[in-house]
Amino acid sequence: MAKKEMEFVKEITRMEDDFAQWYTDVILKTELVDYSPVKGFMVIRPYGYQIWENIQAFLDRRFKETGHKNMYFPLLIPESLLNKEKEHVDGFAPEVAWVTHGGQEELAERLCVRPTSETIICSMYSKWLQSYRELPYLYNQWCSVVRWEKSTRPFLRTSEFLWQEGHTLHETYEEAQDETIQMLNIYREMAEELLAIPMVTGRKSEKEKFAGAYATYTIEALMHDGKALQSGTSHNLGQHFTKAFDITFLGRGGELEFPFHTSWGVSTRLIGGLIMVHGDNRGLVMPPRVAPTQVVIIPIAQNKPGVLDKAYELKAALVERGLRVELNDDTNYTPGWKFNEYEMKGVPLRIEIGPRDIQNNQAMAARRDTLEKAPISLEGFADNVVDMLDSIHNAMFEKAKAHRDQMTFVVDDYEVFKERMATTAGFAKGMWCGERECEDKIKADTAATIRCMPFEQEDLGQVCHFCGKPAKHMVYVAKAY
Amino acid sequence: MAKKEMEFVKEITRMEDDFAQWYTDVILKTELVDYSPVKGFMVIRPYGYQIWENIQAFLDRRFKETGHKNMYFPLLIPESLLNKEKEHVDGFAPEVAWVTHGGQEELAERLCVRPTSETIICSMYSKWLQSYRELPYLYNQWCSVVRWEKSTRPFLRTSEFLWQEGHTLHETYEEAQDETIQMLNIYREMAEELLAIPMVTGRKSEKEKFAGAYATYTIEALMHDGKALQSGTSHNLGQHFTKAFDITFLGRGGELEFPFHTSWGVSTRLIGGLIMVHGDNRGLVMPPRVAPTQVVIIPIAQNKPGVLDKAYELKAALVERGLRVELNDDTNYTPGWKFNEYEMKGVPLRIEIGPRDIQNNQAMAARRDTLEKAPISLEGFADNVVDMLDSIHNAMFEKAKAHRDQMTFVVDDYEVFKERMATTAGFAKGMWCGERECEDKIKADTAATIRCMPFEQEDLGQVCHFCGKPAKHMVYVAKAY
Repeated sequence: MAKKEMEFVKEITRMEDDFAQWYTDVILKTELVDYSPVKGFMVIRPYGYQIWENIQAFLDRRFKETGHKNMYFPLLIPESLLNKEKEHVDGFAPEVAWVTHGGQEELAERLCVRPTSETIICSMYSKWLQSYRELPYLYNQWCSVVRWEKSTRPFLRTSEFLWQEGHTLHETYEEAQDETIQMLNIYREMAEELLAIPMVTGRKSEKEKFAGAYATYTIEALMHDGKALQSGTSHNLGQHFTKAFDITFLGRGGELEFPFHTSWGVSTRLIGGLIMVHGDNRGLVMPPRVAPTQVVIIPIAQNKPGVLDKAYELKAALVERGLRVELNDDTNYTPGWKFNEYEMKGVPLRIEIGPRDIQNNQAMAARRDTLEKAPISLEGFADNVVDMLDSIHNAMFEKAKAHRDQMTFVVDDYEVFKERMATTAGFAKGMWCGERECEDKIKADTAATIRCMPFEQEDLGQVCHFCGKPAKHMVYVAKAY
Repeated sequence: MAKKEMEFVKEITRMEDDFAQWYTDVILKTELVDYSPVKGFMVIRPYGYQIWENIQAFLDRRFKETGHKNMYFPLLIPESLLNKEKEHVDGFAPEVAWVTHGGQEELAERLCVRPTSETIICSMYSKWLQSYRELPYLYNQWCSVVRWEKSTRPFLRTSEFLWQEGHTLHETYEEAQDETIQMLNIYREMAEELLAIPMVTGRKSEKEKFAGAYATYTIEALMHDGKALQSGTSHNLGQHFTKAFDITFLGRGGELEFPFHTSWGVSTRLIGGLIMVHGDNRGLVMPPRVAPTQVVIIPIAQNKPGVLDKAYELKAALVERGLRVELNDDTNYTPGWKFNEYEMKGVPLRIEIGPRDIQNNQAMAARRDTLEKAPISLEGFADNVVDMLDSIHNAMFEKAKAHRDQMTFVVDDYEVFKERMATTAGFAKGMWCGERECEDKIKADTAATIRCMPFEQEDLGQVCHFCGKPAKHMVYVAKAY
């Protein structure tokens, strides 16, 4: 390693030394995000926002393919509306921001900045819905929400975050359940195909479910440090809200009925996930399909005849193929400086092109994920690059999966489990009795929580691994962000 | 006119009878928007939101083509930041919403819900900017903003609206001015090429400019009722904010300098504009390029063999061409009912296809803008439809322009001007002395305001048409939304 490179790498805390500081160093130095003048609120900088735009584009396309349309509801919700569904208000009221004055006047009723929009959306659905013919209602909203958090970290937990929230109504319970699972599967698909993050999918316990839900389903990822990240949730809300908000429709039999209801959301938290799953001590490692810049081209000895022309020609070929490409021919910086810079920013593939490469009808291709560098032929160049980006995606997914599997263990002994949670963490698989008391004890003893009852239930025995009672579900337990 | 159709049309107030009521009828009955439980806040329904998505897509593409990137800044701004630039706080403080409590606690400092983001963005730019090498800063934000309005109308003036706000920094005044005009021109292009609305472009008077701007430029449209709508603004902010927020950079000469600053925005107000420019007594008339549904296909005698197959074949051909197409084969409704429904919703082109049409290798094409119906050949069908949509766009633009020209008059006599403003309104062109006192008198006498000093100055004389003093600028004056 050259001296200059070492100095550069030194700037980011090693993750083995202090994972939290590594995360903070990475997000600030790569200019994904910054702290704002309001405590707990973040500024999402262009490099971070482009990731969100790519996530949005993927999901918005899938939402529309599955028949959903977007709408926009007010930012502010009257206190009386928030109070209509008891579990919901108990869950959210402690963490909302209150608007008490509009212009020069004090408001007759406080308005909360939406922490989520079930209540205001239900109040409108109640006005609109007439007949079973209009069902299903398949609507989504892209917006920001505010939840007053005491302890915050950019992307992972912030007092304001960007998200989408789907809100649908259905004639039957079965249709609502199908929708709930369909949207969870779209989230999993997005996480795996776009972000290269393997997900455990399953159902939340009663304790961990959404305030007001009949059932909450989740996608859960394991971060590099062995902690879990809840990355998206989909709720079957049953008729809790439709009854509380008096949403009815004329059913096929001519009777007034309450529809069944779902909501589902993912947020900018996903960006925190992809950093903590894929990043390394040099900085970000961007999965190719979501990377703001997929390929960076760096000319070598660019003052030599033909080099810059060839570099621009390669760029044009990649742009033509629909790739997001940057060419850095800034003479204020050496190629070595640029290598470091784009490695820190996690650009998946670096193409170096110099006089000798041109002679050999090749370029050098340096992969960010493996740090391997090898010649790539200029014959069929764009195809070669597309193939390589696909390989990188697959390798990153497999690496993350292997890491997760390696950090997943079966609970045999409660004491060993406690010790592991106190040190290396990871996913603990075990059987659970299904009781709240046992769940509370796990958390009190280890700070770990039941992440989900996975759809893929494994038979790990007949007794609860945590308390010895008869087992009901196989669960994943982990410490979580 | 058949009886059923008459009944249908009757539901919308005629614009000649009550333009405001016509507008309200149209936006509610076509389900563009609805009132929300919070006074002054609107719910944008899917049909309205799709229009906004199409506007966003056009602008976001043009912003990116001109080198801009998106970011996201916090929703809430500390009172102390808002207070930093005096003109700005005087302009906005009276109309902001205040958050005073977060969770269970009263905040030490009030936070306002952003009415616009100059202040919080400048506070971050001040932290980030170091050297002239980093300039220009070309950033934009898509979000909602809140301005506490006393009198509101959906889309036109609401306490919350969706918009984009661009915020750029430049090394020189000239570059900032070029940016200001470039973005105004993109707005004009969007209005004319996407919304088919002709715009007058020019500079605002000192009285009408943005709070804190050096100069504000505007695009102004004339509505069907002769009132103007400010449809987008672009501000050269000079160094007002960069000095107030201490944004400096190391200049080429090695000295610390203050950069020059612009901001520019358009909002969901544009949707109100396209309704009031193009709509008629049957409802909406959607310009084809922004229409959520560009073509609706209605099968006639669809139980006859081959009809539905052909209808779906035509739909597939149009979708293949990238058009937004709906096919309505719902047997619960008659073709006549459907004709009315899609006319009200303003779908630019209706294709009717029945057994006889198929025999003749044609369909019937009904234009929403002219209400003309004529055969269209199935030979090269998609091309024929694309051509027709282009014709409709052009015809709608020309019609709106002709209407505007017809409602534009030169001020000869102040008394005649006052009378006209009290009755038919329209754009008054005249010479103006440039003085605030004169401008105030115009408004007091007529409720009309100087909309802009257009770039295309016409020489209409040497004296101010409104007070008789020496003239400085040619201006457009109108009553405005």
